[in-house]
Amino acid sequence: MSLARFSLNSATTKRWPLPELVAGCVEAGVRNVGLWREEVAVHGLAETVTLVKDAGLAVTSLCRGGFFNQPDWYAENRRAIDEAATLGAPVLCLVSGGLPAGGRDVDAARAHIGEAIGELVPHALAAGVRLAIEPLHPMFCADRCVVATLGQALDLAAPHPPEAVGVMVDTYHIWWDDQVWAQIDRAGREGRLACFQVADWITPLPAGALLGRGLPGTGCVELRRFREAVDATGYTGPIEVEVFHEDVWSRPGRRVLAEALAGVRDHVL
Amino acid sequence: MSLARFSLNSATTKRWPLPELVAGCVEAGVRNVGLWREEVAVHGLAETVTLVKDAGLAVTSLCRGGFFNQPDWYAENRRAIDEAATLGAPVLCLVSGGLPAGGRDVDAARAHIGEAIGELVPHALAAGVRLAIEPLHPMFCADRCVVATLGQALDLAAPHPPEAVGVMVDTYHIWWDDQVWAQIDRAGREGRLACFQVADWITPLPAGALLGRGLPGTGCVELRRFREAVDATGYTGPIEVEVFHEDVWSRPGRRVLAEALAGVRDHVL
Repeated sequence: MSLARFSLNSATTKRWPLPELVAGCVEAGVRNVGLWREEVAVHGLAETVTLVKDAGLAVTSLCRGGFFNQPDWYAENRRAIDEAATLGAPVLCLVSGGLPAGGRDVDAARAHIGEAIGELVPHALAAGVRLAIEPLHPMFCADRCVVATLGQALDLAAPHPPEAVGVMVDTYHIWWDDQVWAQIDRAGREGRLACFQVADWITPLPAGALLGRGLPGTGCVELRRFREAVDATGYTGPIEVEVFHEDVWSRPGRRVLAEALAGVRDHVL
Repeated sequence: MSLARFSLNSATTKRWPLPELVAGCVEAGVRNVGLWREEVAVHGLAETVTLVKDAGLAVTSLCRGGFFNQPDWYAENRRAIDEAATLGAPVLCLVSGGLPAGGRDVDAARAHIGEAIGELVPHALAAGVRLAIEPLHPMFCADRCVVATLGQALDLAAPHPPEAVGVMVDTYHIWWDDQVWAQIDRAGREGRLACFQVADWITPLPAGALLGRGLPGTGCVELRRFREAVDATGYTGPIEVEVFHEDVWSRPGRRVLAEALAGVRDHVL
């Protein structure tokens, strides 16, 4: 297959140190990676820039900003935007945060996210980094992200310039939504589709639910239908594989990359 | 508080044998119970009818029909309707089933549910039992119920007479949905609101996610807002407490009933 659009999100191979991951990607002909701030910090920001540039890789997204329910959200998100710019990542993924501790007011939490994003827009525009609001699966609504559907993410993005604020389409989080096809179409019309991530839905969920994702093709999501829907809007950007699962993390990175490539070839393209 | 609308769904006190549960309800002044087919079968259908009648209790709902992805769905659901009629339960709760094993076609699964419910309508009407389509939380979409929002449940109910097909509003499953207030209002306008169940959302989710519910007031759901929204449609029916959690099941039934009553008094009414 053409590898031009394939991107390995480094969370998929969590225990593969960044230099080995980059070497493994080059060896496999992969041209793109998605990175997480934590591992960039471990390797060093400047060192990571050098590492990926020397390897000829593009950074398709940086995860993650958001968590607007934390007191230091403003400074932290500005730092995240700066890091994305330094890495040449066009997109900063936003996991917007759940309810405040002990809180129940989900409307207020959502309204605050809208205001917080508005405050970050000037810095994002100046840095040339696009904020991608990611709807997370509703099972994370309380503790990770009160933005639970693509429709909501688009509503939150709407007041802001499309070049500053877009949305992340991650199949794992939104596959169950019967409105998702109309909302992907809307995302295209409104110029908001910032990035496309694929992961599959497998059962049973593990305790805590976070590490329950499957590699493409191992679950029940209509991944090709998503890719076709996204492409039908004119999206030609990366197809990032982002999977969190203990079983996947316990396998060698090189093997997981090969599985991810095969999964995308057989179930996404 | 007035106990007139409070109903104890027996799944909340799973290990409390039915005769003790009935005695405990009478002692606490509770007038309504929701039952599950499995425990009715354990105690015997005729014996259960006698038990609840002699105690002066009403059966507010029977759980559950549905699972339309099983080969025997038609015969099984007819039996469930008959059991509800025999128990005097006005409502049979439908958990519609997930994807067929190995399947990915969620649209087809949803269409099949619509057709299956249509085939059951004549029997439900004849028996005087209302089928209540229950949207389950999207985390159960693959393996328990492809109906994931109240809007979808209402769309599925729409072609059928309201006295035959309604919807179940269970706070646990739909609290995260920003469309839910408009859809509760719609349920009222369309005469579909068959029953109201309350449970709270607590984290972290346990493995498998099924037994993660909290008693009213222990989590982050705006329960009173739900009760007010439901009542604003003209609903005057039962407020059923239905909680599945190992910690709750491990406590004595009498104590859990007292906690459920206090939770409804302090957080729902």
